[in-house]
Amino acid sequence: MTFYYKNVYLNETALITGPYEKKGPLVHYFDKSYDDFYFGAKTWEQAESKIIEESVDLLLLKANKIKSDIDLHFGSDLLNQLVANNYAASSMKIPYIGIYSACASSVGELILASNMIENKQIKRCICTSSSHNNGAEKQYRYPVEYGGPKRKTTTFTVTGAACALLSSEKSNIRIESGTIGIVQDLGVTDVYHMGAAMAPAAADTLYKHLKDTKRDISYYDYILTGDLGKYGKEILKEYMKMEYNIELKNYDDAACMIYADTKEAYAGGSGVACLPLVGYGYILSKMKKKNFKRVLFIATGALMNPSMTNQKLSIPSIAHLISLEVTE
Amino acid sequence: MTFYYKNVYLNETALITGPYEKKGPLVHYFDKSYDDFYFGAKTWEQAESKIIEESVDLLLLKANKIKSDIDLHFGSDLLNQLVANNYAASSMKIPYIGIYSACASSVGELILASNMIENKQIKRCICTSSSHNNGAEKQYRYPVEYGGPKRKTTTFTVTGAACALLSSEKSNIRIESGTIGIVQDLGVTDVYHMGAAMAPAAADTLYKHLKDTKRDISYYDYILTGDLGKYGKEILKEYMKMEYNIELKNYDDAACMIYADTKEAYAGGSGVACLPLVGYGYILSKMKKKNFKRVLFIATGALMNPSMTNQKLSIPSIAHLISLEVTE
Repeated sequence: MTFYYKNVYLNETALITGPYEKKGPLVHYFDKSYDDFYFGAKTWEQAESKIIEESVDLLLLKANKIKSDIDLHFGSDLLNQLVANNYAASSMKIPYIGIYSACASSVGELILASNMIENKQIKRCICTSSSHNNGAEKQYRYPVEYGGPKRKTTTFTVTGAACALLSSEKSNIRIESGTIGIVQDLGVTDVYHMGAAMAPAAADTLYKHLKDTKRDISYYDYILTGDLGKYGKEILKEYMKMEYNIELKNYDDAACMIYADTKEAYAGGSGVACLPLVGYGYILSKMKKKNFKRVLFIATGALMNPSMTNQKLSIPSIAHLISLEVTE
Repeated sequence: MTFYYKNVYLNETALITGPYEKKGPLVHYFDKSYDDFYFGAKTWEQAESKIIEESVDLLLLKANKIKSDIDLHFGSDLLNQLVANNYAASSMKIPYIGIYSACASSVGELILASNMIENKQIKRCICTSSSHNNGAEKQYRYPVEYGGPKRKTTTFTVTGAACALLSSEKSNIRIESGTIGIVQDLGVTDVYHMGAAMAPAAADTLYKHLKDTKRDISYYDYILTGDLGKYGKEILKEYMKMEYNIELKNYDDAACMIYADTKEAYAGGSGVACLPLVGYGYILSKMKKKNFKRVLFIATGALMNPSMTNQKLSIPSIAHLISLEVTE
């Protein structure tokens, strides 16, 4: 399902990260990075809430707005019940709806916000996307203290919060179109190789977008997926070539960009915050310099749940996509 | 944030429940009720997915449509990662986004769908809302087999799936407006009295809706909240009277209607499916007979998460509201 927009702009972003992202090559694109995992809060979950709130405060400051200027807030994270966003929202007093498409949520939020702005149903919307490495590990895998080794295809959940302000007020980045994906399930059961589960979803949404818009892949100067990781990225490239005869050239995956190639990060970053941190940080800066004029963000989510994988079910996945353009 | 609609209709619904709802007074308003908690599936989680899929099949059959006639699917449930809907969606191949506002989600979905239909961004949308008593107990409270007694203010999670079809094709029920709520947190920490946590959210959203629309409470023939329960309902009535001097007269709460007053259900039903089962079943039938012409559904959600309540944090809550009218 592809939507087209004429009057939706990405006005401002605010990006906060944890310590591992601070050590990464994109640190200068973030507004703020912490040296620990607590950020002054008592627990990892509360820490994640805290940086969401802080990213909103920073965003509003940068955009010269106050909370009552904002009509709607979409939020997403990986914690059960989207709890990091729920608690952050409780201090904000902005009408709020939580979105869950795992790590595809960030773009899902942008699409819903764009649809409502395009038709003047709302003026300004903030979209918050966050994840926390330790919070996610604790919830989805093993106690962090256990410190078990992992396979090389594993990704490393990004600790950070990314916040975007969308409105119909002109800026140098326009949201041009968006495609909502369908859930794919090709039978992958390996929770340590989610890139493999998600690549077919990315491929399907990208193919449908090109078909809906009648565009060739060369229409776009740059394509950013997130977070397929080092191995999932190669699967996507092969899959696009084999299945649709489409070659991905000016393409990279946010997972492979946020960390220097260290052993700690295995196949790269992941988590709801990974794509928007790389996209709003590094890629938008390239767009503002007009290095890229037309860009796709394809956010991919593994709809993984420990109860279901314990029941030996495979991992469904989904991808949503948004097209951004530099305005003249 | 209140939205107004001129061209959005609720075309069809399909309602499936479990055994306790079958014993309740509204059984004749449901399309189908099962005698057990498994519905032929192996686990409670898979059972919940199964009745979501079945409710969609039934809906499409009743509406004389097929899956490819549907542009978009919003889904919500109480399981972590909205897993019941994710797995159901993976068999459907309809563009999908998950929504989470706990038991306020059902109305959140209707509002987002209505906004997109009103502006012709989509033609037809399905909204699925589900919950499963045993799945929810297992996840949020104690193992079901433990069988611990509970306090009288506790609610009993409804087992069921409710599915609605919205479009701009005229029907006898029009969606007239919707209000998205803000997260409230008045410091309630008692997980066995979530009606108390949610009543202020219902009050705030209702008050804002009346203010935005410049309507008196008497504009509406009937107001349905869900799920405050027997005690939460009284708190809302008192709160509205004290805080806003508004008397709730033609009013009831879905929690108090779905079960006969048995000891098993404590303060009444709850769960994402409760309000839509009562609303789409009993209330719409009253509207179709023109007993009620203008109705409000106020869905309330306790954004509860066991990790956060274990960290001694209070329970934030939210309420979204939709106004339905009988067409002439």
